[in-house]
Amino acid sequence: ADNGQFFMRINATAETGAALEDLRQGFAEVAKPFGMNYEFHDQSATMKVIIMVSSFGHCLHDLLYRVRIGALPIYVVDSTQDHMDYQKVVVNQDIPFQCIKVTKDNKPQAEARIMEVVEETGAELIVLARYMQILSSNFVSHYPHRVINIHHSFLPAFVGANPYQQAHDKGVKLIGATSHYVTEDLDQGPIIEQNVQRVSHRHSAAELRSLGQDVERQVMLRAVRWHLEDRVIVDGNKTVVFVK
Amino acid sequence: ADNGQFFMRINATAETGAALEDLRQGFAEVAKPFGMNYEFHDQSATMKVIIMVSSFGHCLHDLLYRVRIGALPIYVVDSTQDHMDYQKVVVNQDIPFQCIKVTKDNKPQAEARIMEVVEETGAELIVLARYMQILSSNFVSHYPHRVINIHHSFLPAFVGANPYQQAHDKGVKLIGATSHYVTEDLDQGPIIEQNVQRVSHRHSAAELRSLGQDVERQVMLRAVRWHLEDRVIVDGNKTVVFVK
Amino acid sequence: ADNGQFFMRINATAETGAALEDLRQGFAEVAKPFGMNYEFHDQSATMKVIIMVSSFGHCLHDLLYRVRIGALPIYVVDSTQDHMDYQKVVVNQDIPFQCIKVTKDNKPQAEARIMEVVEETGAELIVLARYMQILSSNFVSHYPHRVINIHHSFLPAFVGANPYQQAHDKGVKLIGATSHYVTEDLDQGPIIEQNVQRVSHRHSAAELRSLGQDVERQVMLRAVRWHLEDRVIVDGNKTVVFVK
Amino acid sequence: ADNGQFFMRINATAETGAALEDLRQGFAEVAKPFGMNYEFHDQSATMKVIIMVSSFGHCLHDLLYRVRIGALPIYVVDSTQDHMDYQKVVVNQDIPFQCIKVTKDNKPQAEARIMEVVEETGAELIVLARYMQILSSNFVSHYPHRVINIHHSFLPAFVGANPYQQAHDKGVKLIGATSHYVTEDLDQGPIIEQNVQRVSHRHSAAELRSLGQDVERQVMLRAVRWHLEDRVIVDGNKTVVFVK
Repeated sequence: ADNGQFFMRINATAETGAALEDLRQGFAEVAKPFGMNYEFHDQSATMKVIIMVSSFGHCLHDLLYRVRIGALPIYVVDSTQDHMDYQKVVVNQDIPFQCIKVTKDNKPQAEARIMEVVEETGAELIVLARYMQILSSNFVSHYPHRVINIHHSFLPAFVGANPYQQAHDKGVKLIGATSHYVTEDLDQGPIIEQNVQRVSHRHSAAELRSLGQDVERQVMLRAVRWHLEDRVIVDGNKTVVFVK
Repeated sequence: ADNGQFFMRINATAETGAALEDLRQGFAEVAKPFGMNYEFHDQSATMKVIIMVSSFGHCLHDLLYRVRIGALPIYVVDSTQDHMDYQKVVVNQDIPFQCIKVTKDNKPQAEARIMEVVEETGAELIVLARYMQILSSNFVSHYPHRVINIHHSFLPAFVGANPYQQAHDKGVKLIGATSHYVTEDLDQGPIIEQNVQRVSHRHSAAELRSLGQDVERQVMLRAVRWHLEDRVIVDGNKTVVFVK
Repeated sequence: ADNGQFFMRINATAETGAALEDLRQGFAEVAKPFGMNYEFHDQSATMKVIIMVSSFGHCLHDLLYRVRIGALPIYVVDSTQDHMDYQKVVVNQDIPFQCIKVTKDNKPQAEARIMEVVEETGAELIVLARYMQILSSNFVSHYPHRVINIHHSFLPAFVGANPYQQAHDKGVKLIGATSHYVTEDLDQGPIIEQNVQRVSHRHSAAELRSLGQDVERQVMLRAVRWHLEDRVIVDGNKTVVFVK
Repeated sequence: ADNGQFFMRINATAETGAALEDLRQGFAEVAKPFGMNYEFHDQSATMKVIIMVSSFGHCLHDLLYRVRIGALPIYVVDSTQDHMDYQKVVVNQDIPFQCIKVTKDNKPQAEARIMEVVEETGAELIVLARYMQILSSNFVSHYPHRVINIHHSFLPAFVGANPYQQAHDKGVKLIGATSHYVTEDLDQGPIIEQNVQRVSHRHSAAELRSLGQDVERQVMLRAVRWHLEDRVIVDGNKTVVFVK
């Protein structure tokens, strides 16, 4: 209502072997007089995804486990990491592994290399599954609404580094995690999903981090799943999410 | 563990007519060799409370309702408001009402008047039940850990004015409320309790405010109740809460 | 998908003074070839509601408070109680009060009297706000999907009397409440909303009841609000709820 | 308060190399005049655990992952399964694997074999991580408060087989999981932990099962962890849990 837009999502099953292309063309006639923006997606198509990781593996591990048991319909075409820690887990699942170290000096080259990987694999989505490098505006601008990050705090609280230590120092009673599309503003992109977990004074900062990792996994998984199922529409700096 | 302190709370029932004063004296001998800090409180004593309110009455209303049905053992000795809106609800429950308007010019005098009310009534706790004036450092310093505020956001997110509008503009998926002891730093005192409520893009800022009021009531009630029951120990800028 | 039905709810704003009746007639042409079931409702119409209460007043109190502050757009046309406890709170809000005692012997007459009240007032919805009498099949069959009950447990756990004592005896770690449409099967009608609250071994059965009342209020309020806003469609013994 | 018992748990760090045995002996003198029941446990000791699994592997997988990354201090001495499905995951983590099929005819022999494994490995805890065989009273009686089960419903709702289908048929708005000690009464032992997850009419029974598995993992993990850390005291058919 704020901007006079009406959003709608319809999930339909074609009874016969209807062609998506025919539907697109047929609907164009319907849409034109109303000035609709619309998209059709085929949910049986498996999205190609790159998972980028640094030194925490819990999100990577959870995604790969779900892929393995058939609970997450994505095709992980590559895992790009700036550490070697999770090479084995990726390779054992027959996923190509790239170790692309990023330093102050090589950042443009490293990002160019990542973009090559995106190009070569045809990846449609990049999941920053606790990837700790800050991507440049140049990189991000190539993939609008195609890079999903998991931030380990309930944004906008505790932007920046080491949010669990910040949360511990502040003495908050809930910790959280936020999954959002990556934009040129660090940790400021459209929020897809957030959740929290109750904690107490009894928890050390390390225990907050450990508890928080379960929230991160859950929030990231929901965001990725909803993106896959075309449940997320970006509207300015916010999202419209058709939660199941 | 961070600062080498050990906190403990014991809730005991005296089988016979034991005197609290005897217990205090007897325990002094036990405590001395261990260098304990300790307090004894009589839970059957009813705490004297002042409720301060501005233009939103939901927290006041909830506290008064619970007092009325015998579900919150406090003695509301006064309600001090800077508006006239909730005079009737207070007076009908036979609680003294003070309207003390606070302006830029009269703030010292207004606060002095409030302090007189505290003095006259013997109030042990001041609840800022959505009181929108900022209390001076001078006022706050008189009542350490005796002033509880309810802030209408999940602190430290959305400090300051109109947090529901801020939350709406940011597109967060959860809104929250925080109850804390008031210190000289605005919205920075030791947090007693926080909670959140799931929201979506479908909610306007006004609807967030309406939904959030239910969270505020709940969080404020818990904080007040835990304070009454001596479940809260302040440790630096954090609290140790023995949650029931 | 289970029964091949497609459910949809559209909330639209008429830009000009469109007549609802014209919309109904015009849409009939559209609906016919598709065999649609459909309804149009005017959200600006205020629903007439009867609130029925026995000896616990927290749900009644919460509904009336929200009506009073303009946060719940219903017109409470009557409150029918089998006790006298909450006569004053109703009458002070200028709502007609009926005390209709129900005993084994007078049940048919008592229910006939309640049905007269429904008739006379034109009530569209009956809220059993902790009404402890079991309504007869005859009564219930007159008001399909027009009687909403709040049950003080997480159904189907703890059907029947004194669920908080049952929960305490069982040692559950969460207590809940359930709001449902009333059907001829006691506590078995289509569930509209449920929620839970964490508890521990530290809580007595009386404390569970006290904590649970806050869940009951919240769950009942959501169910009533969603019913008002035509967010609930009954599908067999289940509900389709378009949660905001 | 119900039965006049007072429960307490103290977590202490020995500054010097204090011997647990000395503490036990020294405390005996203190405890005797008060008639205390007490136990001392060394948290640095790693508990020996057997994980029993049938045809769902998510709980097993989660426990093993946490052991692998050092986030759960148990020593998995054996995994006993009545299917072959998860042999590889166990063996690859260097855990002995037993496939002990249980049929109507061989149940006494099969359970005797499991008891041998417990004996041989010195296992202190048996985790039924979605083990679908019903253990006999004879078996259970050998391991009081040493067998933890995860049940895939919010008990006491949906006792017995296929609770997700039951939940779907009932149209509940929350699904849950329950972890409890196993006693001779099926699904009736003392509850350690429960949690729930919001669902809607949009979810099929299969989707409820999938969502529920995440709740099961979380609830089982908490129960196992709290048991390890001696946070659980069984009191009749209920538990006292010192939640962190």
